[in-house]
Formats: sequence, C-alpha cells, structure tokens
Amino acid sequence: MPTRAFEYYHANRERFLEGLIALLKIPSISALPDHKADVQHVAQLLAGEFRSMDMERVEIIEGREGQNPLVYSEWLKAPGKPTILFYGHYDVQPPDPLEEWISPPFEPSIRNENIYARGSSDDKGQTYLLVKAVEGYLQGEGRLPVNVKFLIEGEEEVGGEHIEAFVPKNTGKLAADAAVICDTEMFAPGLPTLTTGLRGLVYTEVEARGAGHDLHSGMYGGAAPNPVEALAKILARLKGPDGRIRISGFYKRVERPSAKELAAWKRLPFKEKEFLKKEVGSTALTGEKNYSVLERLWSRPTLEVHGIRGGFTGEGAKTVIPAAATAKISMRLVPTMDPKEAVHEFEAAVKKLTPKGIKTTVRVISSAPASVVSTENRYIEAAAEAMKQVFRKKTVYIRSGGSIPIAGLFDKHLKTPVVMMGFGLPDDRLHSPNEKFHLPNFYRGIEAVGRFMEMVGRS
Amino acid sequence: MPTRAFEYYHANRERFLEGLIALLKIPSISALPDHKADVQHVAQLLAGEFRSMDMERVEIIEGREGQNPLVYSEWLKAPGKPTILFYGHYDVQPPDPLEEWISPPFEPSIRNENIYARGSSDDKGQTYLLVKAVEGYLQGEGRLPVNVKFLIEGEEEVGGEHIEAFVPKNTGKLAADAAVICDTEMFAPGLPTLTTGLRGLVYTEVEARGAGHDLHSGMYGGAAPNPVEALAKILARLKGPDGRIRISGFYKRVERPSAKELAAWKRLPFKEKEFLKKEVGSTALTGEKNYSVLERLWSRPTLEVHGIRGGFTGEGAKTVIPAAATAKISMRLVPTMDPKEAVHEFEAAVKKLTPKGIKTTVRVISSAPASVVSTENRYIEAAAEAMKQVFRKKTVYIRSGGSIPIAGLFDKHLKTPVVMMGFGLPDDRLHSPNEKFHLPNFYRGIEAVGRFMEMVGRS
Repeated sequence: MPTRAFEYYHANRERFLEGLIALLKIPSISALPDHKADVQHVAQLLAGEFRSMDMERVEIIEGREGQNPLVYSEWLKAPGKPTILFYGHYDVQPPDPLEEWISPPFEPSIRNENIYARGSSDDKGQTYLLVKAVEGYLQGEGRLPVNVKFLIEGEEEVGGEHIEAFVPKNTGKLAADAAVICDTEMFAPGLPTLTTGLRGLVYTEVEARGAGHDLHSGMYGGAAPNPVEALAKILARLKGPDGRIRISGFYKRVERPSAKELAAWKRLPFKEKEFLKKEVGSTALTGEKNYSVLERLWSRPTLEVHGIRGGFTGEGAKTVIPAAATAKISMRLVPTMDPKEAVHEFEAAVKKLTPKGIKTTVRVISSAPASVVSTENRYIEAAAEAMKQVFRKKTVYIRSGGSIPIAGLFDKHLKTPVVMMGFGLPDDRLHSPNEKFHLPNFYRGIEAVGRFMEMVGRS
Repeated sequence: MPTRAFEYYHANRERFLEGLIALLKIPSISALPDHKADVQHVAQLLAGEFRSMDMERVEIIEGREGQNPLVYSEWLKAPGKPTILFYGHYDVQPPDPLEEWISPPFEPSIRNENIYARGSSDDKGQTYLLVKAVEGYLQGEGRLPVNVKFLIEGEEEVGGEHIEAFVPKNTGKLAADAAVICDTEMFAPGLPTLTTGLRGLVYTEVEARGAGHDLHSGMYGGAAPNPVEALAKILARLKGPDGRIRISGFYKRVERPSAKELAAWKRLPFKEKEFLKKEVGSTALTGEKNYSVLERLWSRPTLEVHGIRGGFTGEGAKTVIPAAATAKISMRLVPTMDPKEAVHEFEAAVKKLTPKGIKTTVRVISSAPASVVSTENRYIEAAAEAMKQVFRKKTVYIRSGGSIPIAGLFDKHLKTPVVMMGFGLPDDRLHSPNEKFHLPNFYRGIEAVGRFMEMVGRS
C-alpha cells in the first residue's frame, strides 16, 4: 500500500471519528415521515464531504414526491483502470423501544472501543468508511488507483423505491467493473469475512376486520367474530411447530447450497450455545430441526411477524371485541425463489385461513429477491486478500440471512460482480436498542478498502 | 302513583336533562390514571345532588391509595317500610378510537331523541335516573314511600376493587330488603325487561417474552423465538374453530338453563339476521353451533382477546423480531363456574401451550362470578309491574352476557334479592364509539323507579 495514503489514514483518525459522530447525530429515520428534514440533512452533509475531498462530480438526486435523495459522486481520471461502484445507505431504523438504550440513540457515546448510536453499524459507519478510504487515498496520493463511483441511498430500511427505479434507467452512468457494498458483518471479531449470499424479502401488512365497530365483549362475546383471534389463528397456521412454513408451493424452488459451501460453513467458528446465550438471549432456539442453525439463517426461507396491534392495549381492562387488527409479516426468500410468486402464495394462504365473519387484506410494503455471488472473480479475490492483509487472518466466505435488495439490483441491471465487504460484528445489535460499531473495525475497514483499490488498480 | 311526585317528574324534565349533560361532560375514565381528577369531580357532583335534594346523609368514601371513591347516601325515615339499596356507577370506559365518534365523547349531543356521549347509557344516564326518581318523589311528596340507600361506585369498568372490599365490611350499613341495579338494557325498544342472570368475568393480561432484546429478523429469523408468533399460537389453540374453549376442565361445571327459561328465550323478538347486520355489522356470526345465539351470549362461557400489541406497529417496515408481546384476554363465566378455578385452568393451559424459547406470564386484572336471580319474589314482581305500567307492555325476563360483579357481591354478602331494572337499548353501543342513551327511556326510567318505590312501600 502506498505510504502517503496509509499515513493520511493514520494522521486523520480523530477527524474521521468526528465526521462519523456528526453523521450519527442526525436521526435520518426513513420509516418515519417526521424525519424527512433529517434525511435531507444527511444527504447534504455527505455531498459536502464529496465536494471537499475533490471528487470530480457530486450530485444530490431527488426522486418522486416523498422519496429520499440518492447521493452520487464520481472520480474517473484513471483511464484504462477498472471502475468500482461503492454503495452504502445513510438512512437508519427507528430507535424504539427508546427506554432500552443505555445512551440516547442519536447522541453517539463511546464505550470500550465501540461507538453506540442508531446507524453506527447499519449503515452510516460502514458507508462513511468507504468515503474516508477514497478521501484518504485521493488526498494522500493526489490520485486514485481506480475509477470510482459512489451511490448512497436513503431508503434502504424502507424498501428502496427510489434506487430501484433509478438503477435500471441509469445503467450507463453507473457502469462499473465491480460493485462494493459495505453493509454486512464479519462472522466473528477479527475474522475477515466476505458475504456471498443474501436472503430476499417480502414485507407485508395484513389487516383483519370483523364487526363494523368495537363491541362490548359481554354483550357479543360468543357470537361476534374477533379479528385479533382471527389474525392469531392465521399466524399460528402459517408456520408449523416444526418451523416449516405452511404456504402451498412455498418451498418448490428452494435449493440446498453446494456440498462444498455447506462444508465450509461447518468449519466456521460457530457455537450454538453461545449464539443462543449471547446473541439471542432466550431459553431455546426454534426453527427447522433438520437444518443446522446457519442453514436456517442463511439458506432457508422464513416467515416472521414483526409487530401486531389491535383493540385495547392500555393500562387496565377494557372489555371490547375490537373491530380490526393488523400485523406486519415478512418472508425471507432464498436464491431461486420469486418474490412475486411468494406474494401470491402468501395472499392465497391468508385468504384460505381467514375464518368466516372476518375480512383480510394483504398490503405489500416491499419486495426483493435473494442473491448469491460466485467467489471466483478477481474483485472478490482482491477483497479477500485486502482484508486478510489488514486483519492478518484468512478471509472466510459466508452468507447472510438479511436482505440487501441493491445486491440483486446491481447484479441484474449492471451485470457487475457484487463484493460485500462488511466490518460489522455479530453483536452490533442492528435494528435493536444499543446498536454499536466497533471503532477498530471502522479504521481497519478504511485501510482494507484502500488496499482493495490499490490491488485492483495494479493488475 | 301519587300526583305530586308525578308532576314533579314532568315539570323538571329539562332540569334533569341539564344535570345529566353536566355529568356526561366530565371524562371520568377509570381505566386511565390521567383522569383521577375527573373521577373525583363526578363523585363530588353526585354528592352535591344528594345534599341538595335533602337526603339524610351523604358520604364520599375514599378507599386505599389509587382507588376511586364510593358515593353513599341514605334516607331512612319510613319506619316499618322496606329498605331499597340503589346501585349505579359513575365511571366510564375509555372513548378510543376517538376518530370514529360523530360528536366528541365528552360533549353530549342530542340527535333523534338520543343523547350521544361516553357513559350516557353505561352508566351515568341510568345512575342519574335513580337519583332523579328519588329526588322527584322526595321533593314532590315531601317523603319517600320506602327507606332508601344509594351506593354509587367509580371503578365498575376496571374491576371494582374498592366496592369489593367495602361491601363485606359494611353489611350493616348496607342492609336492605332488595338491591336495585340500574346498569342493564331492554331486550328491544319499548319492551320492558328485567335481567335475571349475568355472566361472570375473569380478565387477564398475558405477556410472552422471547429474546433478551429486539432482533434483526434477517440475521436471526429461522432460529430465534418470536413472542408474537407464540402468543398467536397460544390464542389460536385456546379456542377451536367450533368456538369451543380448549381449556382442560373449563366446562365441567357449566349447566344449561331450565327448559322453561330456554322456552321463554325462544319467544323473545330476536332476529339473527338483524342482530348480525344492525348490531354486529360483520359478514357472519361465530361461536358454538349447537347453541342458539342467545344461549351463546347468555349461558355459555366465552374466551375473548380484547387487545394485542408487540413489536413494530408504526408506518412502513421494520424488520425486527420483537422481544415481547402482550394480549388482554378474558373469560366470561356462567353460573356455577368458579372464577378462581377458571384462572387456574387458564394459567395451566397457557403454560402448556407456550412454545419452547418463550416465557409467558399471566396477570389477573379482575375476577367476578356469574349470578342468577330467582324471579319469584315481591321486589322482582313489583319492578316488572312498574315497568309494565310505564311501557304498557308485559315485562320480559332475560339474561345478559355482560358482567356486573356487584350483583354477585350483593347476593353473597347482603343476602338481598337483586333487581336489575335496565333502560338501555341494544344499539346503545356501550364501550364503543357513539355510545348513546334514548332520552324517552331516561324519563320513563325515572317514572318506573318512582312507581316501583310506591308499589313496594304500599304492600
């Protein structure tokens, strides 16, 4: 790695951290309409960073009414060299339940080399390390070893409508030899990791309606339909006690990973007991018994309910049969499953399970296919080598149970290999209270991305 | 009926209505701690009414910290005559969902001879008509034909802890020949009705906990326990699709009403289609097929979920596996069922149905047995005759699916026959938006109670 870039990284650690803190202070929660101004604020802040680090071009790309802007930037002065498209997202999940945070979600707090804040790991910290890797190289060396494009979105946590429309229409602008997504995690602390597969996601809201208005449960209980009960019955029947999803046709396209990949997963330092105790914190794991935990998380589809509400939930007692109830239900999909087909099958299953006297409606909030990446290309190999050099351990290949719709989108429209370099840790508590990012990984991430660019530019 | 009492009733209709409106304007919601001051306000207002109408004694009886006061009043200057204990409650249900009210719940509005407000029928309107019946008689005639005691509570909608402790300790103070509860409804408009049976109620809150904190559904979905799913499964299995409650031992004490009572129910003007369309407003009724709708409502136990909440329920999507979920679940009990036994059986059933990885806890919020009253006593007969004279139709005897714990309490501790005279109508929307009370029934109720006192005092 060239000396001056390396020195720049080290000399600017404190400034990089200050920049990250400024970013984390802004509650850019894409799920809550009240935070539109915060979302805009972060987009402006990132654009400002790109301008001051001498990128050739910086754009804030507004979408349709209500959509959050994309931040685009490029530096294309390395003729004959490959072009890398860097991706991250600047929006974050809602922070509730607020009372469980040790320090407030938007007042970053550093404890034990970790920075605690909503979005610290997912994905502001990881987005920002890409920016700083490029800044350091450009400022230190006066040039980049490759051509670089950035595309940073603000709707990753809510379905990414804007980017989904933007990518297919701008394949020329976004053309690249490889895309680097920095939004995943390492399998274990200190173990460099590339993610080569992601589950897809279909996220829905199911509403059940019974009587025309709330009824007195004494006067009507025993004869009037109860939509909470109906929703409970539907939910209970969508998945068996064996963890198997009971939706007709749901598994027909599900394929098992190759024997080689499964064997590699077995070699990973995974301890079920520790996973249960330290990460999940319940008394037992659930799911399909015939599959290992990693298979259940990475290569099996799931159905989860994320939230439910209906009727009286305040203090004390109200004897009411509610008129309506709602649940948020998603399905994680594995490669070769078709999201549209899954939605149809789900809708049919809900309809079939709806008891008499009840009307149900299914609304699809977001939808994205799963994706897998071949490990046999020079960009994946360069990333693995760069991470190995920084962490001084052999890089492992894993999949993730999460969904990064953009991976499928890049693959489909840009036809580029997608490299998922991630520096989060399994206990980063993404989407949960007390989300954190391990600061040494922030700095190592910057260096690994620098080395990756250098390596790709050299060949 | 004596002329001067009758004249007083008619001359003071407008003033009675003004008094009722003043009462309805105060949001004395016992379920919401924020409304403690309103609860006190209504108690003071009622005490003021008793004082100004020359009752002998008026007391506001405070309970333990946090309990709502009882309002007690008496007039005992009719030696040798029977003593009647009048009961009503001045607390009301929460008004939510607010957006469904045509006029605001605490701004009484009169439309088509109905007064719309939370508590208009349940139970401020019916409590107030008792007060006005006694006032009119006392002011008009200068005396009452019977001895009278009032006991009005402010916790009926939240389990009645205060009165439940008060009655057994004050049997001397409350001693009476009959208790009149005015908190039920007429079977149909214009059809005078006495309620001779009530269901009991066990109201619980069930909490399910899984992981130690909310988890990312992508990272953990397929292996981590989901408490909303668990609660759904428990709920789904507590009641079969046939409406039968699947709790071991639950039905062992359930008895069918006498053939005579069932035959009388068959003669009531009940139309299932109209009930479905006008009252319930759904596409079908539910419940046990082998029992008529009235049996299901009046003499069969039920299990209902009143509300459920857990996880993310805001706008949009949050991919979380929640750490906890809660449901409010009650059981209506029929005569001879023991509430304590029902709680034990319920707790055992919930525990048995709890899936691995999940912890459930059951909290009992309130509990009261069912009650039935014999129709063969002079007080019931006098009430039936008084109502017949006012409504000019033969009085029918029905049961109610609702629960009035005080009926069981009076029966058990005071050993008095309990007369449930009610002037509500089936479409009064108790506990629902747009609750109303039919004003002609308010005035007829006053007169019927006056005639009842006269008749009881004469014999």
